Amino acid sequence: MIPFTYYSPTRFVFGKGTVNEAGKQTAALGAKKALIVYGSSHAERSGLLKRVVDSLKAENIEVVLFGGVRPNPVDGPVYKGIEVCREQGIDFVLALGGGSVIDTAKGIAMGAVNEGEVWDFYARKRMPQKALPVGVILTIPAAGSEGSGNTVITQESTLLKRSATGECLRPRFSILDPELTYSLPLYQTACGIVDMMAHIFERYFTNTEAVDLTDQMCEAVLRSIIAAGNAIRENINDTDARDTLLWAGTVAHVNILGLGRVEDWSVHALEHEMSALYDVAHGAGLAITYPHWMRYQLQFKKARFVQLATRVFGITPKANDDETALEGIAKLSEFWTSLGMPTRLSEIPGFKESDIAIMAKKAKRSRPGELGNFNPLNDKQVEEVYRTMI
Amino acid sequence: MIPFTYYSPTRFVFGKGTVNEAGKQTAALGAKKALIVYGSSHAERSGLLKRVVDSLKAENIEVVLFGGVRPNPVDGPVYKGIEVCREQGIDFVLALGGGSVIDTAKGIAMGAVNEGEVWDFYARKRMPQKALPVGVILTIPAAGSEGSGNTVITQESTLLKRSATGECLRPRFSILDPELTYSLPLYQTACGIVDMMAHIFERYFTNTEAVDLTDQMCEAVLRSIIAAGNAIRENINDTDARDTLLWAGTVAHVNILGLGRVEDWSVHALEHEMSALYDVAHGAGLAITYPHWMRYQLQFKKARFVQLATRVFGITPKANDDETALEGIAKLSEFWTSLGMPTRLSEIPGFKESDIAIMAKKAKRSRPGELGNFNPLNDKQVEEVYRTMI
Repeated sequence: MIPFTYYSPTRFVFGKGTVNEAGKQTAALGAKKALIVYGSSHAERSGLLKRVVDSLKAENIEVVLFGGVRPNPVDGPVYKGIEVCREQGIDFVLALGGGSVIDTAKGIAMGAVNEGEVWDFYARKRMPQKALPVGVILTIPAAGSEGSGNTVITQESTLLKRSATGECLRPRFSILDPELTYSLPLYQTACGIVDMMAHIFERYFTNTEAVDLTDQMCEAVLRSIIAAGNAIRENINDTDARDTLLWAGTVAHVNILGLGRVEDWSVHALEHEMSALYDVAHGAGLAITYPHWMRYQLQFKKARFVQLATRVFGITPKANDDETALEGIAKLSEFWTSLGMPTRLSEIPGFKESDIAIMAKKAKRSRPGELGNFNPLNDKQVEEVYRTMI
Repeated sequence: MIPFTYYSPTRFVFGKGTVNEAGKQTAALGAKKALIVYGSSHAERSGLLKRVVDSLKAENIEVVLFGGVRPNPVDGPVYKGIEVCREQGIDFVLALGGGSVIDTAKGIAMGAVNEGEVWDFYARKRMPQKALPVGVILTIPAAGSEGSGNTVITQESTLLKRSATGECLRPRFSILDPELTYSLPLYQTACGIVDMMAHIFERYFTNTEAVDLTDQMCEAVLRSIIAAGNAIRENINDTDARDTLLWAGTVAHVNILGLGRVEDWSVHALEHEMSALYDVAHGAGLAITYPHWMRYQLQFKKARFVQLATRVFGITPKANDDETALEGIAKLSEFWTSLGMPTRLSEIPGFKESDIAIMAKKAKRSRPGELGNFNPLNDKQVEEVYRTMI
């Protein structure tokens, strides 16, 4: 184990009907005027937005609506939101949605109280020390952003997808009302499942030694997510499985599973360039990337892939480590495919082979010429991994 | 799963040498004058206390020492500490020690800023809404108190051991420096191992359905603790195993493992009366209580004990559930015994059979006539369980 600091001050409020507590939670933080950031018109049509607004108004909190945030969020709405906050004297940002909405809300909260160019935080030219307080009502499991101090945004002019990090970005509360997720179609649910599993994999693939405790915890949550995913494929209305997924998505990314270990994050970097370039869901992009990345890395490192195969996918160890590992990766891929996830770049509408060089060049390196920490990929290898995905 | 709120705002600082950060962490909270609560003279002799004092003084924080807290903490020092805080204008309470010291520090912090009788909080006549901020430097794994909003104290005049709970009691920071635990003898280490496993068991034994995620997580942490315990028995200087135990003790009690499920807590209630009456370590008392409680409960409920046996202790399921379960309980008992833990009340110096009626009467019921939630024990059964432990 390596040294760590674990600080997760978000208040998680989990349970059916908890969306009605939005007003009370916001008022408890002393907010007077809240910007509600949301996405699609679904929140409007379903009456969810109205429930949230009513809940805030009942606590005498003024409300300003800020809708229209799209999946794979871009910087435009962040700039607009910052302007609205300043003009209207907003003192609280409430995100109602999934990862894209929450990340946009965090960008707005950060920009509203910091002078200068907000993209500097994403470009890592500076770190945010302050932001407006952010609250979350999560509508899609697996965002992870509901419990993290991160925000990921794409700069439209460059199509660079980058993250900013700061303790001030951690939501003050996150309302996890499983009923909001009960009507989610299988495809979006599957994207969430892949995303939360990927959040665990980024932590699981490490060279840090003596990490049995977090290994066991990672494997435990992975097995439980897989069981819930299988249950939902069999019965889309399995509310127990939906409840499990909603909380598992938070556990996967609140970082309790990554403590004391060097994390990897190369697959997220590879995928970010896909969803920056194409209209592909983050989860779907990760479903394409992970199995290929695993098979590619297997030539360099075997033990972790064998451990994943045996402990998470119940593979009986073969005489040959490669065989054991590959059987585990095949099981993973089968599971994701059974949920309707893609497996190749060629399945993405608009994909051209010539884009690979562009994505490989743009993918953010951990250090000059190196992507990831588990087995860092050099520039040539980054392109090679993308090519295996065609 | 049942609804829950999860709020754990403690900043955990884990790593070798982090004890030197005590001053910085305390100063970051704006403290000017700290009461350092500690126990034995070991902290003085080893130079640890001086390191902490120097660290605070380097940040211009005034320091008042408050030593001498004994294991199985009683109310006397709490009252004395409250007086000192008021007289000296203390604005921060820093606990340097294990569970007894931390719980005493929390009692002091709570009493210092609330008028009236502090025992009322333990008697559950009122709930604490405010307390002086508390920081922790943990010297013994498994306290759990370093990440919880609880304090357990014995009232000397009645020998009642009771707990108070409140968000304001959660430590603002907890420094987990594994080096402080490296010289801990096997017996104390074993007490810690039993205590942290018991903290998980209290959550594990539940009737709440659809709790696979937290079940898997409980089992993961239990397996990792057992592996670390075996490693330390083989080699008392296994620092990797010591690091694991230190963090596992916090994970076990920070409540991430108990979310969404009804917890039991009958065994802690049974044990509290033992350590209130005799000079027995809390962990040793739990080592006596749990296997007997499990065997007693097995006549009423089987599934959970079978699950524990197969998933944590790797028992191959037998044709008969009782047999599987009993083999698991025997493995648990063997593990604890191998670490030097007692198995029977008759091993406690001063134990008399006539005390059983006294303990049975005093043990705090969950509801009138009922102890625990998994399979509540009536008054007669409480006494019966104690008798099986003789």
